[in-house]
Amino acid sequence: MDYGRQSIELREAGGGQIGTLLKQQLNTKEDLSVLYTPGIAAPSLAIAGDRSLARKLTIKRNSVAVVSDGSAVLGLGNVGPEAALPVMEGKAMLFKRFADIDAYPIVLATQSIDEIVQTVVNIAPGFGGINLEDISAPRCFEIERRLGELLDIPVFHDDQHGTAICTLGALANALKITGRSKEDIRVVLSGAGAAGIAIARLLRDWGVRDFILTDSKGICSVDRTDLNPYKMEFAVEKGGTLNDALENADVFIGVSQPDLLGRDDIRRMKADPIVFAMSNPVPEISPEECAAAGVAVYASGRSDYPNQINNVLVFPGFFRGLFDAGAFRITGEMKIRAGLALAAMVESPTPERVIPGPFEPGVADAVAQAVKSVVTAGV
Amino acid sequence: MDYGRQSIELREAGGGQIGTLLKQQLNTKEDLSVLYTPGIAAPSLAIAGDRSLARKLTIKRNSVAVVSDGSAVLGLGNVGPEAALPVMEGKAMLFKRFADIDAYPIVLATQSIDEIVQTVVNIAPGFGGINLEDISAPRCFEIERRLGELLDIPVFHDDQHGTAICTLGALANALKITGRSKEDIRVVLSGAGAAGIAIARLLRDWGVRDFILTDSKGICSVDRTDLNPYKMEFAVEKGGTLNDALENADVFIGVSQPDLLGRDDIRRMKADPIVFAMSNPVPEISPEECAAAGVAVYASGRSDYPNQINNVLVFPGFFRGLFDAGAFRITGEMKIRAGLALAAMVESPTPERVIPGPFEPGVADAVAQAVKSVVTAGV
Repeated sequence: MDYGRQSIELREAGGGQIGTLLKQQLNTKEDLSVLYTPGIAAPSLAIAGDRSLARKLTIKRNSVAVVSDGSAVLGLGNVGPEAALPVMEGKAMLFKRFADIDAYPIVLATQSIDEIVQTVVNIAPGFGGINLEDISAPRCFEIERRLGELLDIPVFHDDQHGTAICTLGALANALKITGRSKEDIRVVLSGAGAAGIAIARLLRDWGVRDFILTDSKGICSVDRTDLNPYKMEFAVEKGGTLNDALENADVFIGVSQPDLLGRDDIRRMKADPIVFAMSNPVPEISPEECAAAGVAVYASGRSDYPNQINNVLVFPGFFRGLFDAGAFRITGEMKIRAGLALAAMVESPTPERVIPGPFEPGVADAVAQAVKSVVTAGV
Repeated sequence: MDYGRQSIELREAGGGQIGTLLKQQLNTKEDLSVLYTPGIAAPSLAIAGDRSLARKLTIKRNSVAVVSDGSAVLGLGNVGPEAALPVMEGKAMLFKRFADIDAYPIVLATQSIDEIVQTVVNIAPGFGGINLEDISAPRCFEIERRLGELLDIPVFHDDQHGTAICTLGALANALKITGRSKEDIRVVLSGAGAAGIAIARLLRDWGVRDFILTDSKGICSVDRTDLNPYKMEFAVEKGGTLNDALENADVFIGVSQPDLLGRDDIRRMKADPIVFAMSNPVPEISPEECAAAGVAVYASGRSDYPNQINNVLVFPGFFRGLFDAGAFRITGEMKIRAGLALAAMVESPTPERVIPGPFEPGVADAVAQAVKSVVTAGV
């Protein structure tokens, strides 16, 4: 694993992937008097008189805490806070690189929902936004909901919404290519964790009506007694296996496990099906198998296949838009518009190109503009 | 207040005083594969197997959380977390500028001792050290003690130890100039808050034996019933006023309130007294009054007077030394050696120069070496 070795070597040489910088020169006693005491008393006093000035006069204007408890890190599982740190640093790096946001990793020594909520509330005054990351489902849903209610800054669980927004964007173009409309498709969603539930919710808000959600035990159906409330939200009447679900489906979206499907499974779907196999690094089905089964559009989470569904297309621009608009809350409309803005970045979608790549210029800006348009419109 | 206006204008233009930076280039898919997925799984897995590798492979190697609850900010008092933020940013800036340490401000929405301790414990895995700042006494003593017991990273309350270490350094040279020895002096310490108690403790550890601690009600004496345990630690037999305490004292150290003393008060002290008037920005007594009263060495907290007792001489180098030595704990011996290292930076002390200035080259390095020498010696 060459990338891994390089990653370790870089870190052995330099510590982490991000650091801090000074925004002003500090070379003289005069500088010190402005940037530290006694000058610094003035912004402090101003903010003491009007707390909201912190959004103008401090790093709160542009800062995001990238918060994880290390309970669901990449595909590695519950590896704990220290092992989550490289990933959270990486995330902070992407915030800076793609949207000039000052993000800082905060990894937590607790996995109790109450303590996570309390800790994030306690550190929130210094941050302009909270990006939750790699927190296991279903805990992540309650944590995000409670923080959203308690805080006056935006709270965004990237594993949910970053993935969902990007999926929506790619799907919008895939539907266009295959001549389908969102109201008429049947979607099979394999994987009912953070990403799966968020994708289902966002696509529903967008207008998709026919979902079959599956987990490791098969179709989430109303007769099952083992479903949490989040899965129950999408439970259908008729139970069965994943293969039963695939019968005549238009779209398969996988956020579940490697090598789940073969070409024969896909052949149960309608003609020219759409397959997003986003288990990472090994997808639910390979592009080769899909090609053999007549798949019309294939996407995955991998950078070495076409159509990478990649959260980095979303979260930097999304927070940029929130900050620029001074938005305190995230709405469903923001997420839909952000997804459609990603779709619109691709001028002429083809099966190999339903979503832009991370280094294409203008991606973060397009997402930011979409978010801002909602705030401006007061949606 | 020109410095204040400049401080606000800079912040209106740029937000805060610090930001984040990328330590590596991120311009290609290849970079992304090394610096983010899939490469980033390798350091995460390595740390999952051995938690201590976080000190090598992540920002934990070089990062400090600058933590405040906003309860005792500068001389402004209990202004709350948002108003504390500019000061904490300033501190983070000084960490970077003087010791290349990546420090990040964390301001807390709670002033409960238990919650502060729990919150700092919960966010500690991502940091290499904790710098407590502007937390009111006597709460700060318990918070620092409990965190020191709970965490395996160094915890340093700068208002206490930064001030105490710098005071020790300046005093060492002042004693030399006036031909006194630490064992024989009587010290009057005005102000029994965080800095006062820490100065008393450190000077006692160094070898000073004769203290009179005073607070706003006069001498802290054993017959008083209103003393907290920290003041009681230094209570003397005989009570009285501050003026009583000054009778025949060699050294006055003030960390209390503006314009507390005049020249006639100082004349109660022994000939050639030493006066450190560190109330900021207005000291307990002016240098002019002291000159009129025959003071041999005057120091204060101000940058426009000679001999500025300034924490910035201490904390950057102190943490640099801790990090370079891989030290998990702060010891009294480290503090004493750091203070003496500051004293030794002044080759030929004079009444106008008992302590180096913040921009003199080598200050942070000298402090770091002093701290490291203790770890190496296993003291």
